Amino acid sequence: MATEIIGGVRKRVLIVGGGFAGLRAAETLKDAEVNVTLVDRRNHHTFQPLLYQVALAVLPENEIAQPIRGIVRQANTEVLMDEVTGFDTEQCRATLKGGAELEYDYLILATGSTHSYFGHDEWATLAPGLKTIDDAVEIRRRVLLAFELAEREMQETGKHPAMNFVIIGGGATGVELAGAISDVSKLFIRHDFRHIDPAKSQVLILEGGPTILGAYPPDLQKSALRQLKGLGVQVRTDTRVTDVQPGYVMVGSERIDSVVTLWGAGVQASPLGKLLGVEVDKKGAVIVDEHLHPKGHPEIFICGDLAAAKMANGKPVPGVAQPAMQMGVYAGKSIALEVRGERMHKPFQYFDKGDMATIGRSAAVADVKWPFKAHLSGFPAWFAWLSVHIFFLIGFRNRLSVFRNWAYTYAFFKEGSRLITGDQTLPGWDHSTEGGALRTQPIAGTAEPH
Amino acid sequence: MATEIIGGVRKRVLIVGGGFAGLRAAETLKDAEVNVTLVDRRNHHTFQPLLYQVALAVLPENEIAQPIRGIVRQANTEVLMDEVTGFDTEQCRATLKGGAELEYDYLILATGSTHSYFGHDEWATLAPGLKTIDDAVEIRRRVLLAFELAEREMQETGKHPAMNFVIIGGGATGVELAGAISDVSKLFIRHDFRHIDPAKSQVLILEGGPTILGAYPPDLQKSALRQLKGLGVQVRTDTRVTDVQPGYVMVGSERIDSVVTLWGAGVQASPLGKLLGVEVDKKGAVIVDEHLHPKGHPEIFICGDLAAAKMANGKPVPGVAQPAMQMGVYAGKSIALEVRGERMHKPFQYFDKGDMATIGRSAAVADVKWPFKAHLSGFPAWFAWLSVHIFFLIGFRNRLSVFRNWAYTYAFFKEGSRLITGDQTLPGWDHSTEGGALRTQPIAGTAEPH
Repeated sequence: MATEIIGGVRKRVLIVGGGFAGLRAAETLKDAEVNVTLVDRRNHHTFQPLLYQVALAVLPENEIAQPIRGIVRQANTEVLMDEVTGFDTEQCRATLKGGAELEYDYLILATGSTHSYFGHDEWATLAPGLKTIDDAVEIRRRVLLAFELAEREMQETGKHPAMNFVIIGGGATGVELAGAISDVSKLFIRHDFRHIDPAKSQVLILEGGPTILGAYPPDLQKSALRQLKGLGVQVRTDTRVTDVQPGYVMVGSERIDSVVTLWGAGVQASPLGKLLGVEVDKKGAVIVDEHLHPKGHPEIFICGDLAAAKMANGKPVPGVAQPAMQMGVYAGKSIALEVRGERMHKPFQYFDKGDMATIGRSAAVADVKWPFKAHLSGFPAWFAWLSVHIFFLIGFRNRLSVFRNWAYTYAFFKEGSRLITGDQTLPGWDHSTEGGALRTQPIAGTAEPH
Repeated sequence: MATEIIGGVRKRVLIVGGGFAGLRAAETLKDAEVNVTLVDRRNHHTFQPLLYQVALAVLPENEIAQPIRGIVRQANTEVLMDEVTGFDTEQCRATLKGGAELEYDYLILATGSTHSYFGHDEWATLAPGLKTIDDAVEIRRRVLLAFELAEREMQETGKHPAMNFVIIGGGATGVELAGAISDVSKLFIRHDFRHIDPAKSQVLILEGGPTILGAYPPDLQKSALRQLKGLGVQVRTDTRVTDVQPGYVMVGSERIDSVVTLWGAGVQASPLGKLLGVEVDKKGAVIVDEHLHPKGHPEIFICGDLAAAKMANGKPVPGVAQPAMQMGVYAGKSIALEVRGERMHKPFQYFDKGDMATIGRSAAVADVKWPFKAHLSGFPAWFAWLSVHIFFLIGFRNRLSVFRNWAYTYAFFKEGSRLITGDQTLPGWDHSTEGGALRTQPIAGTAEPH
């Protein structure tokens, strides 16, 4: 515990997770009299709000991911690429994958969230979600490869499977992916093929709840629905997927063919929350008090998606970038005060500037709450979304490059980063005979894309 | 055969391979009265001369790879992403992986070359070579991860394995990789770590022959050797690797530890050459006459690395970009003439402008033969190399972007594209205990990085 440290020795702050919360926490502690260690499994920070742009080949991955060592260059902070596998909160120690231990006086845990397949982990390889650069590259690979395989099959056999892209989940990620696939097929690659017409592709969102974008005001939900329909995206609500198989999904007894299935349905908190041995909610997010502490641990701060924090109105703080950054700053400031012998009295309060979701090119919804209140739709919302995200890429050397790529791609429908790398097969496609025919029955052998 | 086609019908030209030769051939046939089909296994053309820059995190992959559909946009040409698995040269048919067949009147075969492990294919996963984007990303992953693992081990255990990078083969690829690893460790990432000093890394080239850069004039070989030594790269010639294991290589009874082993030793021609059923040399390259035809097949042209062509002086045409492009143009012109009822009388002759190999930042050798004869070393050679390669990126939308990235990276030693994606383990490293200790004995289990 902090109190066990002999006076004069710098307090050790352990930050686990190099996402928005972790990076802002480290930045906030830049001038504090502490020694900071930032641990992340990966060597890079990912700008998640733009991940779907990588997934749909608009932006190359290196434009939205930066090495953490390159971002965090401050004397009192070291970066360690490693995986935390456990905690001894009594002894204030974190265990690393290799077995070594890191002692801390303060712990900032900000390891975010991951996909939840509702107990059907076998669906993961059949319906990838979008959380990491690897996820995005895998989705890009599948979507682009589906068109190539259809072209090949049409060229060789005169027929090809219906180009149905099924997106499970109608939250922000599902809506963004749906709009982007529609853009890619109707704008960017429509002139690339001779035998198929990518513009005839169908994008279908299957949402289990009564509405898409559940967190948004009703008028924006309706607007989003209109804009999606305008792009030709089909939306089915109150529709629960009961099975995911190579080449199709099941809704009860109804079978829906799918050349590529994507997952935007469930998220769950990083497993590290449970490892603390404190109270977590049903998603595994850590229940925190108004100072972001789990019960009984004033030396621990939980930030970002991993924190089950409440807003003034009692609603949960959304799992997006803004609150994550604010929590990181709050934790950093609290520790900086404490090591100076002061105290952070102000509880954490999420300053909600609003929510935005894009629906493809120049379509979006924005629930703006600051600096003014407004519900924006269509181009204004998209422009607001674009401006804000460009702005928050600050610190990324290639902010301008992102903007240029973007403007270029959207203005001229030219390839952003349209590479198919790695494995050249898709689940559900039979690659043994007529170049990539989509099987009508599941094949165990192709359930694993890798 | 061409003569079997009823008059009036456009001749069908099948180009297999979307490398330098295939693309130039298609381009040359742009206005010819033919229907061209360009088949490639991948959806992108790779600018191979710059691959090593991707491998060492200077350039992001999308800057040197472009979708073939985006490059070849001409009315008489269609692009098919598929794999040719056989030929019926009597019936003028190519078989595709899916079993379908493509008929042709003219065949341009330009599928290049691949690594040769001299019958030790089990070395492939332990010592990756550099031919594709996937290869480059894998090498980048291994080199960057090696430093991260060493830092982790030093931080956790107070020791780390000697950072020896072993490169097998002292040809152009080996020399470029060696120089680039030296640059990365001594310039780009030297300030990234707290516990290890990347600048202390050792790069070792093991060359089986009597000299590095065997194809170059003796004075340039010596200069290259001097420049490599200047970068701290060790070179051992007449040194045959007898075994490659996770974590080390064997030279006879001598064991040389290696955190990352790379392969620049052998190449062999694409297997498609043999499938033609014509005469091939010991590397599998197709023996061609002065018109690039294999014996008895005036309707077939072999271009690029796959062609065993001779220069005026009797020496083999080198397997680099220049001759490949020239062969592609020659084949295209020949066909364009024939379909107009004329004949190409001039035999193919390689117009040799010279050879260049870089040895890291502002170091290189250039054997310039045109527009003037000169042997360049050091910065002038490097500058010539850079200018030429930037120039030949023409057609790549992001030529300027490459140059900017490059200038930026080399001028400020800033990260180019330093992402570690995919698998987070390395062969030879034990990831079960103390974060990534390099095993001193081979472990079967880790022989496969994937």
